[in-house]
Amino acid sequence: MPSVFIDVGMSLDGFIAGPNGRPGNPVGDGGTRIHEWVFPLAVLAERAGGSGGERGPDDDLVRAVFDRTGAYVMGRRTFDEGEVGWPEHAPFRAPVFVVTRHARESWVRPGGTVFHFVTEGFEEALRCAREAAGGKDVRVQGGASVIQQALRAGVVDELTVHLAPVLLGKGVLLLANLPAETFRLTPVEAHASARVTHLTWRVER
Amino acid sequence: MPSVFIDVGMSLDGFIAGPNGRPGNPVGDGGTRIHEWVFPLAVLAERAGGSGGERGPDDDLVRAVFDRTGAYVMGRRTFDEGEVGWPEHAPFRAPVFVVTRHARESWVRPGGTVFHFVTEGFEEALRCAREAAGGKDVRVQGGASVIQQALRAGVVDELTVHLAPVLLGKGVLLLANLPAETFRLTPVEAHASARVTHLTWRVER
Repeated sequence: MPSVFIDVGMSLDGFIAGPNGRPGNPVGDGGTRIHEWVFPLAVLAERAGGSGGERGPDDDLVRAVFDRTGAYVMGRRTFDEGEVGWPEHAPFRAPVFVVTRHARESWVRPGGTVFHFVTEGFEEALRCAREAAGGKDVRVQGGASVIQQALRAGVVDELTVHLAPVLLGKGVLLLANLPAETFRLTPVEAHASARVTHLTWRVER
Repeated sequence: MPSVFIDVGMSLDGFIAGPNGRPGNPVGDGGTRIHEWVFPLAVLAERAGGSGGERGPDDDLVRAVFDRTGAYVMGRRTFDEGEVGWPEHAPFRAPVFVVTRHARESWVRPGGTVFHFVTEGFEEALRCAREAAGGKDVRVQGGASVIQQALRAGVVDELTVHLAPVLLGKGVLLLANLPAETFRLTPVEAHASARVTHLTWRVER
């Protein structure tokens, strides 16, 4: 059965974004330092409709994550930041279900990304994403609120964290608002590249 | 040249101990969950003067850490918790320099551990440890205060974190009180065992 997975960049001190994130200041103050390892990769240039960039194990890994993903679930704030920040060819190239209170017509982008706006909550967005994924996996993209909802709902199969060797000191914590005692993960994979450490756990139900 | 290294267990949400740690409640409320992967290992049983326990990659790894260490630097609170908590054969089997305000005669334990009490601060304790290490490496054992002093002082060559797949929610953070912008690590190694993920970074000076 296709998986529901989280795949997210995090600072060593647990933040997935700096403080004061908003449209025009995506991932918050200093938050881009978490993703420095991603920006030079060829797959990002290609997904933006261009070419060039670095190849290698990190690039292969990000490529594989895009390839396995048939649909996305995204929080409204992440969408708002990305709406003005992504290139015209948004990188997803698949249906993206945005959890929001505000109904809006689907927004079709060049390159195959279509944003759908779901006003009935996270679980309904996940249902739509599973249906739209065409047998591929569903990625709970973020931000923290949607990721934490997914973990609390017990619908996540796999958690991947790209642990960046930086400290932010403040910002948005990935692993907050979770039931500590009942949260069970099993380590599955760990790989250190020159810039980042890739970690995957299976989430036990 | 021998290294100065940190080797510490941490929860997924960044804690190396739970709250309310004190003699009789070592590593604080729930903090032993961080170290669950260590307790069954053969090397711990042996170091306590006994036998039995599990062998395998985790055991080999802990054994190698003990073997490379010629001397330890330890905080006073960690010592206070351990003084009443360690078995009579304390596991270190090497000189341990405790940073404290209270002068005290050296305390010799069966099995080769000798605690020395240094009242002139962390850097002096480190100097003593380097001298006593006989060409082996010096481990900054902890707790958080001594580890953070060592990182701020720029004397650490290598940071190893054993990332336990548990959440504590509160307690003592490893990576607090550090100069975020100037703290530079390079990933060196990552290995997932069935119970824990071992991560090592080189600390850039």
